[in-house]
Amino acid sequence: MATPIDPTSTAFLLAENRQMPMHVGGLQLFEKPEGAGKNYTREMFEQMRDVEEIRPLYLKHPHRSIRTGGQLVWKDDDQFDIEHHLRHSALPSPGRVRELLELCGRLHSTRLAWERPLWETHVIEGLKDGRVAMYSKLHHALVDGVSAMRLLQSVLSTDPDERGMPAPWGANAGSGRSRKPKQEFTLSEVPMTALRGALGLTAEAAGMPAAFIKTLTKSVRNETSALSLYAPRTIFNQKITGSRRFAAQDWPVERLRAIGKASGTTLNDVVLAMCSGAVRTYLEELDALPDSPLVAMVPVGLNAKQSDSASDKGGNAVGAVMCQLATDRDDPEDRLTSIHRSMKDGKDALESMTPAQILAMSALGQAPAILTPMLRMQGIIRPPYNLIISNVPGPRTTHYWNGAKMVGTYPLSIPINGMALNITCTSYDGKMAFGLTGCRRTVPHLQRLLTHLDDEVAALEKAAGV
Amino acid sequence: MATPIDPTSTAFLLAENRQMPMHVGGLQLFEKPEGAGKNYTREMFEQMRDVEEIRPLYLKHPHRSIRTGGQLVWKDDDQFDIEHHLRHSALPSPGRVRELLELCGRLHSTRLAWERPLWETHVIEGLKDGRVAMYSKLHHALVDGVSAMRLLQSVLSTDPDERGMPAPWGANAGSGRSRKPKQEFTLSEVPMTALRGALGLTAEAAGMPAAFIKTLTKSVRNETSALSLYAPRTIFNQKITGSRRFAAQDWPVERLRAIGKASGTTLNDVVLAMCSGAVRTYLEELDALPDSPLVAMVPVGLNAKQSDSASDKGGNAVGAVMCQLATDRDDPEDRLTSIHRSMKDGKDALESMTPAQILAMSALGQAPAILTPMLRMQGIIRPPYNLIISNVPGPRTTHYWNGAKMVGTYPLSIPINGMALNITCTSYDGKMAFGLTGCRRTVPHLQRLLTHLDDEVAALEKAAGV
Repeated sequence: MATPIDPTSTAFLLAENRQMPMHVGGLQLFEKPEGAGKNYTREMFEQMRDVEEIRPLYLKHPHRSIRTGGQLVWKDDDQFDIEHHLRHSALPSPGRVRELLELCGRLHSTRLAWERPLWETHVIEGLKDGRVAMYSKLHHALVDGVSAMRLLQSVLSTDPDERGMPAPWGANAGSGRSRKPKQEFTLSEVPMTALRGALGLTAEAAGMPAAFIKTLTKSVRNETSALSLYAPRTIFNQKITGSRRFAAQDWPVERLRAIGKASGTTLNDVVLAMCSGAVRTYLEELDALPDSPLVAMVPVGLNAKQSDSASDKGGNAVGAVMCQLATDRDDPEDRLTSIHRSMKDGKDALESMTPAQILAMSALGQAPAILTPMLRMQGIIRPPYNLIISNVPGPRTTHYWNGAKMVGTYPLSIPINGMALNITCTSYDGKMAFGLTGCRRTVPHLQRLLTHLDDEVAALEKAAGV
Repeated sequence: MATPIDPTSTAFLLAENRQMPMHVGGLQLFEKPEGAGKNYTREMFEQMRDVEEIRPLYLKHPHRSIRTGGQLVWKDDDQFDIEHHLRHSALPSPGRVRELLELCGRLHSTRLAWERPLWETHVIEGLKDGRVAMYSKLHHALVDGVSAMRLLQSVLSTDPDERGMPAPWGANAGSGRSRKPKQEFTLSEVPMTALRGALGLTAEAAGMPAAFIKTLTKSVRNETSALSLYAPRTIFNQKITGSRRFAAQDWPVERLRAIGKASGTTLNDVVLAMCSGAVRTYLEELDALPDSPLVAMVPVGLNAKQSDSASDKGGNAVGAVMCQLATDRDDPEDRLTSIHRSMKDGKDALESMTPAQILAMSALGQAPAILTPMLRMQGIIRPPYNLIISNVPGPRTTHYWNGAKMVGTYPLSIPINGMALNITCTSYDGKMAFGLTGCRRTVPHLQRLLTHLDDEVAALEKAAGV
């Protein structure tokens, strides 16, 4: 059975090439339950493999032939082989987090072949601390990064004693949700339909880039505006290669919240200030810090009134604020204050936009991977912004998969040509996790950013007097 | 720089699809040298990774565009990333040979993406006996299986103390050979040019399949002939999927040679008799043994006079004998005698063939993966043969890579539609290694064949009174 592929998904498929694989990823860390035998990882793998039925999302692959009139359609894989998609892997010694991040970077570099369903999950053993890791990737044509993480979370439970939980691709994976609504999610659970609806707008925009850009830029040509598409050149804004490096770490939300409280800023402002300080130090070390401040594209949720405008399904509309990162300033406190103001300006400006502008800005927030290249095609020669920093709230309490405690969850995103670094943050169980995905060649020594982030937390604490 | 792809390589590229990846593979086992530290595998990986220059064979990838007029050409990868091709992997516990073979089967199932150079090598740690494994795959458009193994062997040394040896893809990989000619190889070293020359004939044949088949079948329509293209239907002769299973084991050449000596047969006859007995038991267990004997396509070297006919470069011409495996007979000795006779008949028949027939038979022996499907297109409805069994002699003495002793080397080959099982044998350092590559779905429980092979050696020894 072949079904049409919606225009947005088609755009993600066609935007893909060797330099720009279009899949999102996630890395999760689990602690084995008490009494787990030494074959625990294998058993976990087998339990995930031996599902009775696969959800349609995990069965379909893009197909194009003369019979489809050259159009891309979804087709079920009639030779579906779960062992191609789910793999039991191991880390080389010494099995540190370093080896794990290297493996994730490598796995994230390889494109998903269109001839099979567009996902892969690796259950990974060999961490010397005994934890089990899981790296997953899914094509952006199937889900966006937020939904990908929710797909996993939808099969988790807050009950450490619950068993019989399916893999995310198990046909019964949704069933647990009705028993146990997870009201904790800030956005509702796996809002696939809603998100697809909103993404449909992107497709519309993709169909008429000139009109779209015109709408988007009419009010944002003012360079100092928080919606401005105008940023200095940096090493991040070059052509990229297909090689990826991944770095990840988390910090207690309490530490970041205390900084925000003491300085009158939000948690998200603190996250952005951490990124700002870390990127500043990183570029300084490379003698590549521009004089003007870097600009981050920051997706933000739109409120109910706006989201009505942005999506007739009333889903989770996401807009985009261009945040001036104040990387030209020396003082951490100064940067934080400045970022706070820039974000506030941006949100105010979003509120004052016309419905058409919100629509366009929302499309950009949801699908930068396909829309950003268009900005450049439309005559915006300087980079419209320097990097993307997303912060997506996740569950606040401890979750388990069949008794295995999830102790960390980190997002991997999509660098694109001209945007070689992506920082995505997600909170879980009292920790703020940073996932940094970059082109390995364009962004050298990516992992140094982790040290800089850590230093920046300390500097902000000192500045805020906490 | 783009260079044309010769017609045979093009045929291998175009014959490929998800069900039939067209790469050959090799698995090698190494013992760590004395005094190796616990990071030995990583050091080996790094030594292989940090080559100064890459050989052209390992740099090019197929490319097709409007600028090439839609033709496939070789193009150097201008974003070549060694870490995409060379990988440091580890086995999940308990790290038995079973886990290693599973990993090889999985790696062998995945197609090489055309957008990058067509090879991958995995340096694998985690075998519980402390050995280091290496799995490599190369596209058949670059090399055939024999040459692939020789590429590796060309960088090995018989001297355990020699160091500074390059990886097979290092630009200096050939240099050792002039210092140290390896006269031990039965065929001359890495006879790439010669083999490509001979394969060119295949291309010629591929360009005119009807004429080719006519030539090939004119004298071989006689069903009892050892050149006949006529075999019973078996489970091996079905459409295959893209999933692979790999099984491998070796037996002392001395044991097999003793059987041959006592029974007046050759080493190769004994190898074929082992396969015959094992396949018979395997099919019997599945209640799928046909009444008529199975037929194996066995590539054989042609002698000087014939090879002059077969290749004007005077290279290593290979013909094909259709060997009746006598699987209808109960008695191991009976099977061995019968196989011996069938092989002798086949070689005699090859000698009596016309140059044009030898040419066609040689093409079939060298490129069954692209020619076998043509046989069926040409109206040979029954399978032309049931499986391919190759036996390629390798080096007779112990070889080392920078002090690491190679203790085993096993070939992985290409199952194709209608030929779901491939058995390739290679001798090394007094051992005869069997590599069995099959479609995981069409050939269930492939690994049972290893037990049956072992039982068959014992049965043949008993029958021969050794």
